[in-house]
Amino acid sequence: MNVSYDAVVVSTRVRLARNFADYPFPNRLKDVKKAREIVQLIASELNYMDTFDLYYMNAISDERAAFLKERYLISKDLIAHRPISAAFISRDESISVMINEEDHVREQYFLKGFELRKVYERISGIDDIISESIPFAFDPEFGYLTACPTNLGTGLRASVMMFLPALTRTNLIRRALPALSGRGLTVRGQYGEGSVAEGEMYQISNEVTLGYSEEEILSVVENAVRTITEFELREREKMLREDELGVKDKAFRAYGILTNCKRIDAQEFMTLMSDVKLGAVTGIFDGNMEELDQLIVAMRPANINRLNGGPLTAEEQAIYRAEYAGKALRSMELLNGR
Amino acid sequence: MNVSYDAVVVSTRVRLARNFADYPFPNRLKDVKKAREIVQLIASELNYMDTFDLYYMNAISDERAAFLKERYLISKDLIAHRPISAAFISRDESISVMINEEDHVREQYFLKGFELRKVYERISGIDDIISESIPFAFDPEFGYLTACPTNLGTGLRASVMMFLPALTRTNLIRRALPALSGRGLTVRGQYGEGSVAEGEMYQISNEVTLGYSEEEILSVVENAVRTITEFELREREKMLREDELGVKDKAFRAYGILTNCKRIDAQEFMTLMSDVKLGAVTGIFDGNMEELDQLIVAMRPANINRLNGGPLTAEEQAIYRAEYAGKALRSMELLNGR
Repeated sequence: MNVSYDAVVVSTRVRLARNFADYPFPNRLKDVKKAREIVQLIASELNYMDTFDLYYMNAISDERAAFLKERYLISKDLIAHRPISAAFISRDESISVMINEEDHVREQYFLKGFELRKVYERISGIDDIISESIPFAFDPEFGYLTACPTNLGTGLRASVMMFLPALTRTNLIRRALPALSGRGLTVRGQYGEGSVAEGEMYQISNEVTLGYSEEEILSVVENAVRTITEFELREREKMLREDELGVKDKAFRAYGILTNCKRIDAQEFMTLMSDVKLGAVTGIFDGNMEELDQLIVAMRPANINRLNGGPLTAEEQAIYRAEYAGKALRSMELLNGR
Repeated sequence: MNVSYDAVVVSTRVRLARNFADYPFPNRLKDVKKAREIVQLIASELNYMDTFDLYYMNAISDERAAFLKERYLISKDLIAHRPISAAFISRDESISVMINEEDHVREQYFLKGFELRKVYERISGIDDIISESIPFAFDPEFGYLTACPTNLGTGLRASVMMFLPALTRTNLIRRALPALSGRGLTVRGQYGEGSVAEGEMYQISNEVTLGYSEEEILSVVENAVRTITEFELREREKMLREDELGVKDKAFRAYGILTNCKRIDAQEFMTLMSDVKLGAVTGIFDGNMEELDQLIVAMRPANINRLNGGPLTAEEQAIYRAEYAGKALRSMELLNGR
């Protein structure tokens, strides 16, 4: 089988959880001055001014925080630890170093596509820089010490975001979940723990980090992504073989609604965009998944508010979304010659 | 209130039921030779060759009969009386003279718009021609004799086809029905007796003909149509006042689906076309109801088969409908400058 990961794997993300021995874990760190010291430590190591923006979480608005979260640059826990938390975010949005989230330092690197090795290499580089003068808390037996035992050891979480419309629609994804669980993997919706699989997007990642080497973790995730990709592609082929016109009809209807509607809420938008994406990755449309995914992120509530230059009500957002997305989709020329 | 009948009244139809004293009523007329005599009588009076096509019902295919019925040119009863029935249909489809339907002669005249007087005048002209040498069965007390007592007297049925989306969606049409019934009127779906109101189209007509003059019948129907039109327009205004964007959104979505889908069944097509029509009559689109109604008729099953030049399965029709209607709607330029 000729496997095209591009049609299934959206992006790769690796994060490392790290802590300093001289400070209590963030959930017990009440002293804001001490918390700021950690930010300053990282700032001096990163020499951040050139490539990073630094956000003190208690200095930015709820709106801005929501905007960053929607772009996968910060987490719910970072927002929850607001009096003490901060984030260094690279201007190209590939690197995010969160301070005083669950751990003192959460470094993450992000790339489009299926790039586990490359992403791991790059985040290790960042990790080396940060730990140069102040070494992280490390136990010879357990490895890196973390606030939650599931992160002990390597502190590594490798996540791959996958677009799985065929496995979702056939409900086969439900059958695959236990098998993945048994291999030490978890599957989540695109906005992390507990979030539902909106837009038929799933995040595959390793469950625990203790007792495995970095290499082992990467291999387990990599193999799982390969298997799921093949599984998804096989089901897509079957879907098209059995009812190509039905898949086409669904994709074109979604396109027709998205380019004509006058208001659309976030949920319906996701559902229809998923149909358009399936059209793009199966050659029904002339387009690529990446620009469609960018549009999906841009149309989330806080991202719309930022585009608009001020907060909108849900109804106003629905109108803004319809107009903006309609124009964006037309400009992508998905129907080129179709 | 400035009443625009064009936005509500689709067409006007008047029919006259007539019989000859020397022949049994069609339901007892088993002699095909005698039945043909009636056809010949009418043919000689109509001097039909110039403007009419003559269809002997037993000589045309089921497909052709269904096609004519979908275009409102013949009735279910005419098809049921197939061994003895026939129809003269004018080439512009405005006049249809059915022979050996429920009565020996059913003459009907049809015009777009709200034209009760004009249509009655024209069908009376046809009636005068037909009855010139062989007078119809007429009783000084009862008037014209007919097979069914509801047609006794004038034999006149005046019907007005109305597009009532606002009254349908608010369910107010249900409340209006008993009031109309009390005034001797009936309301039916567009395909006659017992048919449901597809596409939010209703046929308003007089229930009985005995005991009323032609003038009285026309007036009762006319007044009812006026009242319902005002009622419908008031509800449309209210709908637009309360949620203009919602009405717009619905119309545009319907347009988006119709111009993009790859297959669509008759029922969904009707529903969406109704949304587009509402858009056209309320100025959301730049189009007129007449061309949309013509498209609706053209997309009925037997009409599609005729356009295609041969019978199609339901699935093939759904595909044909999607492609043909999509092109037709685009060519109407409904979105002109919108």
